[in-house]
Amino acid sequence: MSERILDFLRRRQTDGPCVVVDLDIVRDNYAAFANALPDTSVYYAIKANPAPEVLNLLHELGSSFDCASVGEIEMVLATGAAASRISYGNTIKKERDIARAYALGVRLFAVDCVEEVEKIARVATGSRVFCRVLCDGIGAEWPLSRKFGCDPAMAPDVLERAHCLGLEAYGVSFHVGSQQANLWAWDLALGMAADVFNEMSRRGIELKMVNMGGGFPTRYLKDVPGVPSYGEAIFHALTKHFGNRLPITIVEPGRGMVGNAGMIEAEVVLISRKSSDDELRWVYLDIGKFHGLAETMDEAIRYPIRTPKDGDETAPCILAGPTCDSVDVMYEKTPYELPVSLSIGDKVLIEACGAYTTTYSTVGFNGFAPLASHVI
Amino acid sequence: MSERILDFLRRRQTDGPCVVVDLDIVRDNYAAFANALPDTSVYYAIKANPAPEVLNLLHELGSSFDCASVGEIEMVLATGAAASRISYGNTIKKERDIARAYALGVRLFAVDCVEEVEKIARVATGSRVFCRVLCDGIGAEWPLSRKFGCDPAMAPDVLERAHCLGLEAYGVSFHVGSQQANLWAWDLALGMAADVFNEMSRRGIELKMVNMGGGFPTRYLKDVPGVPSYGEAIFHALTKHFGNRLPITIVEPGRGMVGNAGMIEAEVVLISRKSSDDELRWVYLDIGKFHGLAETMDEAIRYPIRTPKDGDETAPCILAGPTCDSVDVMYEKTPYELPVSLSIGDKVLIEACGAYTTTYSTVGFNGFAPLASHVI
Repeated sequence: MSERILDFLRRRQTDGPCVVVDLDIVRDNYAAFANALPDTSVYYAIKANPAPEVLNLLHELGSSFDCASVGEIEMVLATGAAASRISYGNTIKKERDIARAYALGVRLFAVDCVEEVEKIARVATGSRVFCRVLCDGIGAEWPLSRKFGCDPAMAPDVLERAHCLGLEAYGVSFHVGSQQANLWAWDLALGMAADVFNEMSRRGIELKMVNMGGGFPTRYLKDVPGVPSYGEAIFHALTKHFGNRLPITIVEPGRGMVGNAGMIEAEVVLISRKSSDDELRWVYLDIGKFHGLAETMDEAIRYPIRTPKDGDETAPCILAGPTCDSVDVMYEKTPYELPVSLSIGDKVLIEACGAYTTTYSTVGFNGFAPLASHVI
Repeated sequence: MSERILDFLRRRQTDGPCVVVDLDIVRDNYAAFANALPDTSVYYAIKANPAPEVLNLLHELGSSFDCASVGEIEMVLATGAAASRISYGNTIKKERDIARAYALGVRLFAVDCVEEVEKIARVATGSRVFCRVLCDGIGAEWPLSRKFGCDPAMAPDVLERAHCLGLEAYGVSFHVGSQQANLWAWDLALGMAADVFNEMSRRGIELKMVNMGGGFPTRYLKDVPGVPSYGEAIFHALTKHFGNRLPITIVEPGRGMVGNAGMIEAEVVLISRKSSDDELRWVYLDIGKFHGLAETMDEAIRYPIRTPKDGDETAPCILAGPTCDSVDVMYEKTPYELPVSLSIGDKVLIEACGAYTTTYSTVGFNGFAPLASHVI
């Protein structure tokens, strides 16, 4: 609970829901990654929160950046960071966007198929590419689909093709799944990466880099291991699989860098029941799935919520947003315990909202403004 | 297939995905509702597409408007429409938003509980209120949750409370569920509405209006009944349940008014396979769940897609969007048949995208711009 955020909220003059991000916490998170993984470069996944203040701070701290689009690359360059600190980490890129990124100085690209390699070879001569491999995501709260990455058995062909087309076959990447609390996930994935290194070596091509992706969790309602535990587990797995020939390594924290740095203040718009004998209250907030809380989709992320009545007796309720859309319901399958004394007009604080809230907001669904954001 | 839209797309100079809405089709849709339901007022549900050109046209045609927020009310007033043609149809409203709407001249409000009635009584003296009742949504492609409306048995208490607090207990509303292809749905709902009328009459209060909501479908891949069939079914049900004392009636088409009027042009960014023996291609477009195609959530809406290779042999593929988000996949559980000859760089046309696309777009997730919109 950031006192700075609470103080800001007490003083603010504006109306409506907003998210407030505390840069001191982002600074602490960056230091935790740098300390836990001293030989690994941190590439902040800017999609988690591209607020200019966050990018400026991380630039000053020496972070590198994982970008999903030319738009994100331009945001990073606006901080003054060199293009050499950028990875164009999206495996799905238009050829003209690759060319634009190359013109801006970017030389590091993600791929997961031969078709993408060919685009890069045509318009980003001599660049480094790393091949993303599929990872099963066991233990992640939000296992990734098969959308990104190829079967590990196919990766050597993709990388060899890059090599033959004059690109530098630079390494391998994986993503263990979002909000990954299982420390063994990195061990399995690094074993797979080492297999690709070995196969490439057999083909006469020496890879150099392993991009270990993101997946570092934020604490929501359940406890999660701290960054130092991840650092130890990763170091142990690296040594186990690569011996004394450790590769260059990268991590791409997004949620892990900013998730716990932000808090949303919202207002209770309505509390009602559907019938005179309804056992559950419906609690409607002035923010929902379409204005910042998209990660409640399928009730995936369960945010901690503080109310002015905390400590009073609680009862389960269904929590919903303010739009005329029936899917704009946050928690229904597993109702949320809130104080019985909670009233219409009360302000609630939703914690751990620094990641995947602002840019997930719609432009104005139902005529409500996008989520306001303050970085302090 | 609108020739005007195809012509616009051939001439456009801009890059990137966009939606184009043909006002001639909106005009035809309005006429179809007016003809099929000559004694019913059309309140366009502006959340479906609040483009100023659409609102201006519907204002000229004599439509009224169903608004979800003060923001939407202001958009309607900007067309020059009188506030008397606005229904504030959201059952979840801040008291200060009710007061703002009242100050703007709005006098018709939706409620579904006593708590909301009390807010309106405090700040919108003498207004008309209608009570939304729960409807089961059988037959709808997208049945609504229980988020809006109360048990029909509770509605008389809600309306009586309104009456006692000096409001006009004006009527009942329901929503049969989105993309409702079952014509019997209105019969069941109107029977329920008549029960509420009768109970209120027994209490000495005569209701006047039935708001029959939306739910009128757009043709996606499957055929749906035409608007005239809905008109007949509704007229028949009204007569059956209300006899010769027909109430004032309202409908709130959103999707039915603009869905088939819009088309999205998108580009194939990548086509790949996950392994050398993968049976399914992954086809990635430059638009997905976060930039206009949110209604593919749970594969709810299955859009017709045209490609320049239509007529060639097809094979199933997984269709995904361009963001680095693993949930940004449109069709995977039921793969989509697309031509085997489809290539990277091909433009595809996604039909029936006039509703619930533009304002559903995120402000800039992954650094991609929101969906561009052109109304012609």
